[in-house]
Amino acid sequence: MNARTLAKTLTQVVDELTRPESYKDLYHEHSNGVPLPSGEVLQKIIDLARGIIFPGYYGRSCINTTTLEYQLGVDLDQLYHLLVGQIQAGLSFSNFEEDMAVFAAYSKRTVCMEIRRMAEERAERFIAQLPELRRVLATDVVAAFNGDPAAKNYAEIISCYPVIKELTIYRMAHILWGLDVPLIPRMLTEMGHSETGIDIHPGATIGEYFTIDHGTGVVIGETSVIGNNVKLYQGVTLGAKSFPLDEEGNPIKGIARHPILEDHVIVYSNASILGRITIGRGAVIGGNIWVTHDVAAGESITQKA
Amino acid sequence: MNARTLAKTLTQVVDELTRPESYKDLYHEHSNGVPLPSGEVLQKIIDLARGIIFPGYYGRSCINTTTLEYQLGVDLDQLYHLLVGQIQAGLSFSNFEEDMAVFAAYSKRTVCMEIRRMAEERAERFIAQLPELRRVLATDVVAAFNGDPAAKNYAEIISCYPVIKELTIYRMAHILWGLDVPLIPRMLTEMGHSETGIDIHPGATIGEYFTIDHGTGVVIGETSVIGNNVKLYQGVTLGAKSFPLDEEGNPIKGIARHPILEDHVIVYSNASILGRITIGRGAVIGGNIWVTHDVAAGESITQKA
Amino acid sequence: MNARTLAKTLTQVVDELTRPESYKDLYHEHSNGVPLPSGEVLQKIIDLARGIIFPGYYGRSCINTTTLEYQLGVDLDQLYHLLVGQIQAGLSFSNFEEDMAVFAAYSKRTVCMEIRRMAEERAERFIAQLPELRRVLATDVVAAFNGDPAAKNYAEIISCYPVIKELTIYRMAHILWGLDVPLIPRMLTEMGHSETGIDIHPGATIGEYFTIDHGTGVVIGETSVIGNNVKLYQGVTLGAKSFPLDEEGNPIKGIARHPILEDHVIVYSNASILGRITIGRGAVIGGNIWVTHDVAAGESITQKA
Amino acid sequence: MNARTLAKTLTQVVDELTRPESYKDLYHEHSNGVPLPSGEVLQKIIDLARGIIFPGYYGRSCINTTTLEYQLGVDLDQLYHLLVGQIQAGLSFSNFEEDMAVFAAYSKRTVCMEIRRMAEERAERFIAQLPELRRVLATDVVAAFNGDPAAKNYAEIISCYPVIKELTIYRMAHILWGLDVPLIPRMLTEMGHSETGIDIHPGATIGEYFTIDHGTGVVIGETSVIGNNVKLYQGVTLGAKSFPLDEEGNPIKGIARHPILEDHVIVYSNASILGRITIGRGAVIGGNIWVTHDVAAGESITQKA
Amino acid sequence: MNARTLAKTLTQVVDELTRPESYKDLYHEHSNGVPLPSGEVLQKIIDLARGIIFPGYYGRSCINTTTLEYQLGVDLDQLYHLLVGQIQAGLSFSNFEEDMAVFAAYSKRTVCMEIRRMAEERAERFIAQLPELRRVLATDVVAAFNGDPAAKNYAEIISCYPVIKELTIYRMAHILWGLDVPLIPRMLTEMGHSETGIDIHPGATIGEYFTIDHGTGVVIGETSVIGNNVKLYQGVTLGAKSFPLDEEGNPIKGIARHPILEDHVIVYSNASILGRITIGRGAVIGGNIWVTHDVAAGESITQKA
Amino acid sequence: MNARTLAKTLTQVVDELTRPESYKDLYHEHSNGVPLPSGEVLQKIIDLARGIIFPGYYGRSCINTTTLEYQLGVDLDQLYHLLVGQIQAGLSFSNFEEDMAVFAAYSKRTVCMEIRRMAEERAERFIAQLPELRRVLATDVVAAFNGDPAAKNYAEIISCYPVIKELTIYRMAHILWGLDVPLIPRMLTEMGHSETGIDIHPGATIGEYFTIDHGTGVVIGETSVIGNNVKLYQGVTLGAKSFPLDEEGNPIKGIARHPILEDHVIVYSNASILGRITIGRGAVIGGNIWVTHDVAAGESITQKA
Repeated sequence: MNARTLAKTLTQVVDELTRPESYKDLYHEHSNGVPLPSGEVLQKIIDLARGIIFPGYYGRSCINTTTLEYQLGVDLDQLYHLLVGQIQAGLSFSNFEEDMAVFAAYSKRTVCMEIRRMAEERAERFIAQLPELRRVLATDVVAAFNGDPAAKNYAEIISCYPVIKELTIYRMAHILWGLDVPLIPRMLTEMGHSETGIDIHPGATIGEYFTIDHGTGVVIGETSVIGNNVKLYQGVTLGAKSFPLDEEGNPIKGIARHPILEDHVIVYSNASILGRITIGRGAVIGGNIWVTHDVAAGESITQKA
Repeated sequence: MNARTLAKTLTQVVDELTRPESYKDLYHEHSNGVPLPSGEVLQKIIDLARGIIFPGYYGRSCINTTTLEYQLGVDLDQLYHLLVGQIQAGLSFSNFEEDMAVFAAYSKRTVCMEIRRMAEERAERFIAQLPELRRVLATDVVAAFNGDPAAKNYAEIISCYPVIKELTIYRMAHILWGLDVPLIPRMLTEMGHSETGIDIHPGATIGEYFTIDHGTGVVIGETSVIGNNVKLYQGVTLGAKSFPLDEEGNPIKGIARHPILEDHVIVYSNASILGRITIGRGAVIGGNIWVTHDVAAGESITQKA
Repeated sequence: MNARTLAKTLTQVVDELTRPESYKDLYHEHSNGVPLPSGEVLQKIIDLARGIIFPGYYGRSCINTTTLEYQLGVDLDQLYHLLVGQIQAGLSFSNFEEDMAVFAAYSKRTVCMEIRRMAEERAERFIAQLPELRRVLATDVVAAFNGDPAAKNYAEIISCYPVIKELTIYRMAHILWGLDVPLIPRMLTEMGHSETGIDIHPGATIGEYFTIDHGTGVVIGETSVIGNNVKLYQGVTLGAKSFPLDEEGNPIKGIARHPILEDHVIVYSNASILGRITIGRGAVIGGNIWVTHDVAAGESITQKA
Repeated sequence: MNARTLAKTLTQVVDELTRPESYKDLYHEHSNGVPLPSGEVLQKIIDLARGIIFPGYYGRSCINTTTLEYQLGVDLDQLYHLLVGQIQAGLSFSNFEEDMAVFAAYSKRTVCMEIRRMAEERAERFIAQLPELRRVLATDVVAAFNGDPAAKNYAEIISCYPVIKELTIYRMAHILWGLDVPLIPRMLTEMGHSETGIDIHPGATIGEYFTIDHGTGVVIGETSVIGNNVKLYQGVTLGAKSFPLDEEGNPIKGIARHPILEDHVIVYSNASILGRITIGRGAVIGGNIWVTHDVAAGESITQKA
Repeated sequence: MNARTLAKTLTQVVDELTRPESYKDLYHEHSNGVPLPSGEVLQKIIDLARGIIFPGYYGRSCINTTTLEYQLGVDLDQLYHLLVGQIQAGLSFSNFEEDMAVFAAYSKRTVCMEIRRMAEERAERFIAQLPELRRVLATDVVAAFNGDPAAKNYAEIISCYPVIKELTIYRMAHILWGLDVPLIPRMLTEMGHSETGIDIHPGATIGEYFTIDHGTGVVIGETSVIGNNVKLYQGVTLGAKSFPLDEEGNPIKGIARHPILEDHVIVYSNASILGRITIGRGAVIGGNIWVTHDVAAGESITQKA
Repeated sequence: MNARTLAKTLTQVVDELTRPESYKDLYHEHSNGVPLPSGEVLQKIIDLARGIIFPGYYGRSCINTTTLEYQLGVDLDQLYHLLVGQIQAGLSFSNFEEDMAVFAAYSKRTVCMEIRRMAEERAERFIAQLPELRRVLATDVVAAFNGDPAAKNYAEIISCYPVIKELTIYRMAHILWGLDVPLIPRMLTEMGHSETGIDIHPGATIGEYFTIDHGTGVVIGETSVIGNNVKLYQGVTLGAKSFPLDEEGNPIKGIARHPILEDHVIVYSNASILGRITIGRGAVIGGNIWVTHDVAAGESITQKA
């Protein structure tokens, strides 16, 4: 094997890989030349948001009350601009022209401008919800602290606990999900999943004072509904039991298929709760068990020993 | 404690740590001066491969059919050169001279040149298998999409789903494993393990249309054999039940000790399947259970409630 | 929505987010202007320590016995200086002045200088324990190698295995925990948790020749005590069963509430061992089970099939 | 001076610096939100162009004839995209709407789109001129080699000589100048000026086989005209002698006011040639002198000793 | 030559270079452990100051009147903190304890705290002078524009012209010089010298509406005094003619030895004006000449042709 | 102009630029695949050498006598390895096989190994000369300090003065020149030229206690010979007056054609000294003049006023 055979191999592999049938479903080129949302920029967005919500813990290390206003102003401005770019990328990415008949008669350039306008509007709406986002995350910090005797103070919760890192991302993603931003909410929660081992779908609905201890392996599915003051442990699954197929044998999308957990529910480690069932207020689910039927309020169920 | 005692402490710790008996098994210096495979370079290799296999989703963001050929050419060329360096490092790292009696009579420099030649040959063979690698990964994308009602389109699968990130790495590592490249396949799959929480040994054999939902905590052992159209959920273990020890009490390496899953098997979350058993075609294994015996084709087994 | 409304939104959100009641528990400003411990610097500290303990595997790639002394000298010196800065940050971060009545009469500047002195002293003590740290980690390498038939050599263990990455961090964090360094031990172990999926509290006590196979999802609580030659598999929890509340309904901190595992215990995947119970010498705990009572030495318990 | 006075000082200085009259001529905000051309991106453009023109000397270090086509394709594609962005920035920057009455009736968005179209067209024209650009630069390499007995080979000329670094930039900038791209040509030549000490205005006209020895301090003004085979030494000025003022006392822009050097002229170090004079074919101008009148073809003039 | 001789060479060179007599005047270790001012941080300081003075041209590219206040606030805050660190380094660097008898009785720690306080005070004074600094630089921009028929608009002056880059640095350095900050003013002006080829000593006094055309090779000595509306061309030297030696043959420091240029003076390229002479109001000095005597107001002198 | 014409333009320009006749003299591909010396690595080499020679001023900022030995050891080791790579690149770059008949009969691989061996030998010789290099540079620091009344202390000289930055590079390059290392000495001195405006050919011979004030525009040609205690000012040229051509009209290389300056010579700003003439001991050359004949010892010559 020498330089000549190498050149031949390279050329041949390039040829094979550039055959359209070889990449048809694996290739993305949007007609308006806007690239995909970028993992690197989304990470920057997460970092900015963490710094805005938890000043002094994340983001700029030298912060004080004199300059807090300047710093929030600059960070919010940058967050807004990064979000506009990413939301525009997300909107361009989805099969937008097909989805929205309203654009049918528009030129490509006009569609591109309209997408830009929509991105600006949604980014602004996201910014406007940050104070409420911070308020709710503050309740999660309280819940994490109260739920762990090992925690020394709020500072340890905010700077170390995976649940807070993940909920900051999930709650941001959930706002974007509510604003019909495509793709980005899922990219964000998968970034949180990789960082913390906690996999929360951005479509899930989660109340205040929520916490997850340790967290690795937790899965919370798209149509889950979680009340206030709920606590999960590591490895808990809130999943679908099965899902109906359409006539072509493909899963039907969008059906409510994950559990409802009412207020003050506790689920211990590695329990799996599956299907559109309801776990009643204050119920306790023991570890390592498999639950596929409703559990009444206040009830406790555990593994048969 | 002052500057003088600090200097003394530093000097003394340096002395202790440079005593050969303190580092004898923890220290790597290959005689030919080639450094170890580098995590940083391997990450670059993963990034390049993802960009080649999923153009526009990973790698260069500005891609179009005009320039696709140029870009694949450049990326393959760089991938080849990085691989040569890393494979050379991996080969130098293993106890090569001991292993291969053929080199016994060679000078150090000649061994070094021969290792280089072997690295070039294996890197070229890896490159030649990329079109087939892409073809199989395309089936995994289809499986992930069909298996998840929450998935909106292939694009979401390719850009977000941990199973695709992990399988890209595992399938690359498995090719290198087949080419007898030391160490690198394991380094690659542990990098994927850290990123996705899915731990697949590069020696495992996995068919087409394979998918894992969520994925955190999945373990697939070295001698596992998985057919086509198999689906796993988070937390599933395909492990060894026990392993025989040799006369000195050390585990005997290389014995088939992990399960065989035939086509169309489904395994639900946190199930553990252990030992060289066979799960027959179309069998369904329920969550949170512990399976150590064969399961017949088409059978379903679940946790006792 | 146009530039004017955007400006208004930004200004308004800045106003809301700078209201002290909105950030009171989420904001950190230490009175002496020392920033928090930094994740980036702690990562550098981890990298340096790995290079010092496993020369040639981590850290500088071009290492040889001639220059080993120079390189350890430089790396220890840098490690010391980074540690002083981080420990100082950690000490400043805790409510130091409240905690230590001895400082009550001191001026702010004097407290700041005293904290610096304490940081220097603790960093030096940490450095002094590195030779012992290396000795114990060498036993962990042996345990990981003996416990896994898939492992080819020590080199693979050291450069790939998550358990070694995690134990290096945990054992460093445990030393700092013993030196009463606030916050940093938990930050370190959560960094390891994110990298490896293994969550070990720095307060846990762990003997020699310890190993964890695969590791994802393992949780080892603050007051756990683990003997020598213990082996865990992925998903194992050593947790608290419940914790007493004080009069205000908050968990009482600092009570021994996690299990004791004596020498030569094995715990299989996804088992949960909860509460201040004792698993006797040589006991074997099967997978996916929930253990809340003592297990006698030599006993084996498994899931009811 | 304490924290309170510092806060006051900061606030007051911010107030003063945000008064519009304090920054009116020093501040740039284009109405369409396009930022200025970026020095960082222009440096990337220079680096790409050098790599395209002198393959193997600049740009990618691992180049060979097999992959040259791929690499040029990728680099040209990137160069094109970077240029479009920068030219768009340059066009947006100039007082475009005022300058071009044709846009008077357009909306802001339409102007923005039209500017984009113009930028794409000019970037493409620039790309189309690269082969000719390379041809001319090759003559400059020959001239530099023939003009310096210290030069060992063309490689030394290409990789070391400031004149080649500067001429690559100047000749690029001159093409952009000819395409009526605002600001960028001057930014490019000032970047070359900073790197090499040679200050060539992009409006100057320079023939083939041009060289400058050493180069520091050379100035070549906007309306200079230089023939073929001309050689300058360090410190030479081709400047204006004086310039007429308009009725308001401001210099009148755009008048031919710099010298014409015909073919085969040589000018020695630190000579100053000023005003719209002609230095005839083959004339030689000695060092450290001040020339303000025509010099006949073939004549030599030197400092009076 | 082999590994053994290399190890010996390295060891021997280390030995020679660590002999104190070999580095006694070339080595810097301040007793309080504060490092030297850092070129990298000073560059950051220059970049911040340019962005504050010329918003939109330097620094943040996305700036608008809504966020200008936030951005200046953040940038000034960062500038202040970087300056405190560098001034502290500069003060620690000088032989402070020797210079200032007032510290004689202080402990090392107290001196260190006092230096910190002085650094904070001087940094704040510097910040307070920024509005005036901007006002004067605005006059320099006008002068550069009026002095060059090739300049299209203020924007080109601000973003391209070396004279503005250099004067921004010089005028900052001159303020620090006036605040008795050691070393940093000279480091700053040498950084400008390297970037622009213009060498202005921070001690020089320069009026408003000052400009230098092209600039390479200009030297303006420490005790030069320049009035308003003065214009220089490239290569001009304002130097010392000679300097008296003290009894030991060393030059006596601090004597006024450079020229005085009154208002409205013009000096053409490569002229050298040497010694404490006065060039009277409105005088014109021709190029390439050597001037060592006073020139009367309104007079023109040129090279003998 | 649209996407189709752009694709066509790109393809066509790639075609033109890949025609071998278009790049024949502008393209570098060494047959053994070793890339060219790298500007980036050479800059790292300069930075390392400055840190080794002037500890505490350049390189690591936290240095003290305890750790100086460790730090020099590590830095020298790294300097050696970087140099080996660059010298190997330089040797591979020159037309080595043509130049050295001795290699005629060797295989490519053997030549490559032999070049490596030569590179290692020369790098080691360079390292061995560092103590002498430092000794001579210390004399240059003294000369710069004594020659400038504005200099406050050695520290200012070492950390700010361009002459010291340039002489560190020149003296390194001169050693490599003496070791017959191709290309790199010229690359190094052109890097210094760009940084300082001082252009010294690495072949020039320069004695101790040498200094250049300000420096911009100084040119010192390849065959110049400079004694001890010589001082130059900015803009001085030590150049060739003319150079003989060979039969083909090309300049004959390698002839002594630059001036000799004996001990204690002073040359003022912008003077040009040309040809193989001798400026005798203690002579003084005035500014802005053109000298082409010998000047006797002790003589002073100046511009005719």
